[in-house]
Formats: sequence, C-alpha cells, structure tokens
Amino acid sequence: MSELRHDPIQKRWVIIATDRAQRPDSFAVEPEKTIRGAFCPFCEGNEESTPPEITAVRDRGSRPNTPGWKIRVVPNKFPALRIEGELERSGEGVYDRVNGIGAHEVVIESPDHHASITEFPVEHGATVYRILQERHVDLLRDGRFRYVILFKNQGMSAGASLSHPHHQVIAVPVTPKTVSTELQSARQHYMGKERCIFCDLVRQEIGTGDRIVAMTKRFVAFCPFASRFPFEVFVAPRNHEHSFAVTTPEDIREFAALMKDVLGRLAVGLKNPPYNYMFHSAPNIDTKPSRPGYWATVRYDYHWHVEILPRLTRIAGFEWGTGFYINPIPPENAAAHLRTVDPTQAQEMPTAEGSEVPG
Amino acid sequence: MSELRHDPIQKRWVIIATDRAQRPDSFAVEPEKTIRGAFCPFCEGNEESTPPEITAVRDRGSRPNTPGWKIRVVPNKFPALRIEGELERSGEGVYDRVNGIGAHEVVIESPDHHASITEFPVEHGATVYRILQERHVDLLRDGRFRYVILFKNQGMSAGASLSHPHHQVIAVPVTPKTVSTELQSARQHYMGKERCIFCDLVRQEIGTGDRIVAMTKRFVAFCPFASRFPFEVFVAPRNHEHSFAVTTPEDIREFAALMKDVLGRLAVGLKNPPYNYMFHSAPNIDTKPSRPGYWATVRYDYHWHVEILPRLTRIAGFEWGTGFYINPIPPENAAAHLRTVDPTQAQEMPTAEGSEVPG
Repeated sequence: MSELRHDPIQKRWVIIATDRAQRPDSFAVEPEKTIRGAFCPFCEGNEESTPPEITAVRDRGSRPNTPGWKIRVVPNKFPALRIEGELERSGEGVYDRVNGIGAHEVVIESPDHHASITEFPVEHGATVYRILQERHVDLLRDGRFRYVILFKNQGMSAGASLSHPHHQVIAVPVTPKTVSTELQSARQHYMGKERCIFCDLVRQEIGTGDRIVAMTKRFVAFCPFASRFPFEVFVAPRNHEHSFAVTTPEDIREFAALMKDVLGRLAVGLKNPPYNYMFHSAPNIDTKPSRPGYWATVRYDYHWHVEILPRLTRIAGFEWGTGFYINPIPPENAAAHLRTVDPTQAQEMPTAEGSEVPG
Repeated sequence: MSELRHDPIQKRWVIIATDRAQRPDSFAVEPEKTIRGAFCPFCEGNEESTPPEITAVRDRGSRPNTPGWKIRVVPNKFPALRIEGELERSGEGVYDRVNGIGAHEVVIESPDHHASITEFPVEHGATVYRILQERHVDLLRDGRFRYVILFKNQGMSAGASLSHPHHQVIAVPVTPKTVSTELQSARQHYMGKERCIFCDLVRQEIGTGDRIVAMTKRFVAFCPFASRFPFEVFVAPRNHEHSFAVTTPEDIREFAALMKDVLGRLAVGLKNPPYNYMFHSAPNIDTKPSRPGYWATVRYDYHWHVEILPRLTRIAGFEWGTGFYINPIPPENAAAHLRTVDPTQAQEMPTAEGSEVPG
C-alpha cells in the first residue's frame, strides 16, 4: 500500500508508493539532444556577447570583459526583472501589481564549456559559492528587494537554455509564496517550542539515519521524509544559521565538498539526470517589513538549506490541481541507493546534458 | 518593463513580461512522438485489460466489460491510492503520515482511440461531464475522503501516458494544499465583505472584458490576471455555485459547449498543445471536519471552476524555489489571440498528441 506523507515545513502532502516502488536503477535518463557547433555567449573569448561583467575572478592583470577569467558574473541579457527604477505598487479591483523591479544575474562557473560542478576541484566549487554569497549580500543591501534566490538549472528538461555551467541569482521586491509558507511554519514551531523546526528535523534525520545521503562535520544531506520527487535531496547546516549570506568561508568550503559529493552521487547513480537546485535563505531582514516586527526573530526561527530536485518525473493535472505529488521511490530507498554509489566516478561520466556544444 | 502580478486566491506572484512579450503565434508546439502499433487497453474490444468497469454508457443489451459502450469508467490499473481499508493516521517525530487510502478512476471518453474532446458533439461531451459528476458525487458519499479531483492530461509532455482520450478522478483522505489556500482566501474575503471572491473576480473580468476568451449565458472563460502559464484559461459559472457536484444537467450541457469552444480555440490557435485541466470544487462538506465549523460556510464562500493549463513553458529552479512563475505572454494578449481563432477548425486539425496509436 502507498502512504501519504506530510511535509511539516511546506505543509504539503505527497503520495509515496511503498508497495509498487520502482527500483532506484529503473530511472534511466534519456541523454539530451546536443547541438554541435552552436555559439555560446558564456565561453571564454565571447565576453562581448554578454552585458558588461559585475564581478569576476580573474588572472592578475587581465582586464574586465576580456579573456583571462576563472568565474564571471554578468547581468542576464534577457532579465525577468530590471534593476533600474522605483518600486510602484498599485491595485486594480481585486488585483495587485508591482512594476518589474529586481535583479537577474548569471554566475558563469568556468571558462570551459564542458566543465561540470561535479569535476571542479573543491576549492574552485567553494569559490563559485563564495561569489554567489557575495552577490546575495550585495543585493540584500538594496532596500527595494525582499528576497534573493540563488539557483542552478542543469539540463534542458530542467529549464537550462545554455549548457555552459552557470548558476543564476534573482532578487525580487516581494516575499515569494514558498518562502512565506516556510517562514510561517518555522515561526509557529518556534512560538510553541522555542526551537527551530529545521534543527529538529535535522536532528531527527541524523538520529534515524535511514534517509541520510552524506554528512560532514557541519553539514548534512538527506532525502526528505515527504520528498516530492525521486532522489530529492535536502542539504543544510547541522547547526542553526538563518541565511547563506552569513556562512563563513571555512563552512562554505565544507559545503562545497558536500555538494560535490552529493551531485556526484546523483550523476553516477542516475546517469547525469537533469536537476534544479535552489538556496533557501531567510528574507531580507534589513528591508522595511510589510508587517512590523514580522521578521524580527527570523534569525532564530529560519534555517537556510539547499533543495536539489532531480527532474525524472512529469507533473500533471493531479499535481497542478492539488499541490500533491506522487513519488514512486520512497526516500529511504533513494538514500540507500545514493549511499552505495561512488561519487568520484562522476569524473568519468560522459556529459549527457546540454543544448549546444560550440564547434 | 515587466510586471509582477498577484493572484488574490492562490496568493501567488507571477512575472508577466509586458515589454519583450513573445508573439502569441511564437509558441509552435513540437508534435509529439507517435508509436504506431502499440496496444491500447482503453480501445473497444480490449475491455479485459482494465479492471472491471464501475459504470458505463452502453448500447441497450450490451454486457459490462464487453464492447458496445460509448463511455466507460474503470479503476486505474496502477492506482496512486487504494480504495480498501481504514484510514490510519500516525506521527513520527516532526512528521505525519496517513496510509494510502483513496480512489483512482479513469473515465474513457470514447471507444475511438483517435477521438478528441474538441470533436465530440456537444451532447457527447456533456455526457462525459455528467459521468464525471456522477463519480464525484458517489465518492463524496465516502466519509473517508476529504476531496475529489477531476482532471484531464492531454499529451505526453503534460503527463498523459496513454493517448486514448480519458479523464481521471482521484479521491484523497486529506485536504490538498492548493485547496486549503483557495478556501482560506475565499473565507477571508467573505468574512470581510460577505461576498464570494470568485464572484467579484468574474464580475470584474466581464466588466473590463480584455481577458475574456468566450462566454455563454451562465459560464465565462478568461485568461487570469496573474496567469502562471501562457494561454492559461479559467472557466467558471457566472453565478455563485460551490461545487461541480451540484451543477444541473442543463448547466452541464452549456458548460460542455463552452469547454469545446475554448479547447477548440487552444487546439487551433496553438496547434494542439499539451495541456492539463482540473476541476476545483469545494471539499467534502459531509466529511467530519478537522476543525469544527470550518466547512460550515463553504457553500457561500467557495466557487467551483476549471483551470486549463497549456504546457508550453518549462518550470525551473526559480519557480521551484519561490513559487513565482514567469509568463512571457500577457494574459490580455493571449485572450485577444484566442478570441480571433475559429474553434470549429479544430475538427480539421491533425492529432499531434499521443504516445501510441494502435496498429
């Protein structure tokens, strides 16, 4: 019999197929189509095809917007939101609107089109995450923005339009729904127990152990109890910390090592699946709050984390209509499978992902 | 500049690209792969490959589970939830679980594999919706179920695993998140104004008119102000009614005519796109409520409707992480485009959809 499980933070139900569970290795991912010879604006030498860079990690003496960089941050050429202008909020009968002020940036992880986050030396991965943190902190200083999200889309079917390895950063002028729900759950829990709900969850997961994928001294990766997707992974600091913006460089290095390990396990165990991962941090507590005092304790009740979502199943009418998800692999089985995999083999995996390959 | 719009019912923000909006006809849908000669369990003559039928519209004298039917309802052979057993709720530290009790049925719309809901005579479409209503009402009588959802997945990329035309019915023992959010919004609005929020919304849409797709005496179809997806359409009764379960046969006929019109416009205007549509009705008010009195006024503050979601864009990290959506076509442009289309041409459209065609 299958089982309904409730996510205590997102207040969401999932149906976990426990009886007719698919075997973890039944998720053979079809390699994505590769278009050879297409032009890539993120490759070294093509710096003039992006808007001027915001920041970069560069060889000594190299000039901005020329070759000689290791990591490069540029505004998105087709941004969902624009940085210039004043926020204007208006109503129209039952509806509300805000003009599209925000930021949309791209962090190009490497000059090499074929590089992969699972193959970078840990030190390079840590630098990518430190640059993401730097952009997060910088955008939080802008009083117009309520929330900054850092994320990565890997593979066309996960929404990546360019296969050159990159992360994205978006700052928005309103608090997103997913974040409000998480904040409310965390607040309620804290009010009743004076404990962080995420800390409780992390403690319970480490205690039972059967959903743990990998762990370091300060970070843990596990398949959530109410995973929406097969092989969904949650990565969080083991000790309380409200935002990725305040993580120390030393912790970022350890986090980078764990991310490399987990993404390597997914790459090997599922043959380079498409995936999305997103950082969830507390909202901008320096912004003037919409409800006075609302963010005052966010440092105590919110806990930053990363959600990794392999994109192996399709979302259809039932999911859209209810917010339920059907997951054919119990997270206990997914975690057990990922624990058996050798993540270092990721270096030998052919890169199946990508929309184009420069010729 | 783009614009952020807020959905007053789902409490969700969307980013509508108003400046660099794509042209409505730029959404050419790639025809889906068709596998010829595959076996279809829903075709006439293959009745023994489904579980025994629950109900059917049959030729006089034909026997159950044999040919001679026009519409046939069967349990899903691979159900997400099972009908047998008592509900058992249990906790495990911070987590909650319920055993997988529920119903999962398939309404096969026609014995003809190549039939399409846009080509049925209105009378046949009305019979399909009446059968769906009958299943809805029957499942609501079961006190274990809190909610019944009726939906249709059209096209493989919208999650349909069989192309033979069918709807699905799922009954769940808990209130889905999407529904709770809608109920809360409707309740809040009703508390403050003693008016249904959906009635207000329908009135405002008919008043401004620029998002209307089509309309009959008792039903209206429009592209929502905060559409998540290009060409999203909302279909609702113009007068207050809390559940599809109580709609009269006369109204169902009018609803069927409007659905045929709207789906015909989508088929012609977007060249047979994959889509999902879902009925949203009030939850089971005869069920013992989890919070006493909570459902007591649901008849006044909830308003049933259908959401049609063409699946033309991909969901990626930003959407998963925030609950925001980015829609490259303003709903005003989408509605204007759909109004210009002749839905009767749908009959001449080649059927692009489908995973298999029996040989």
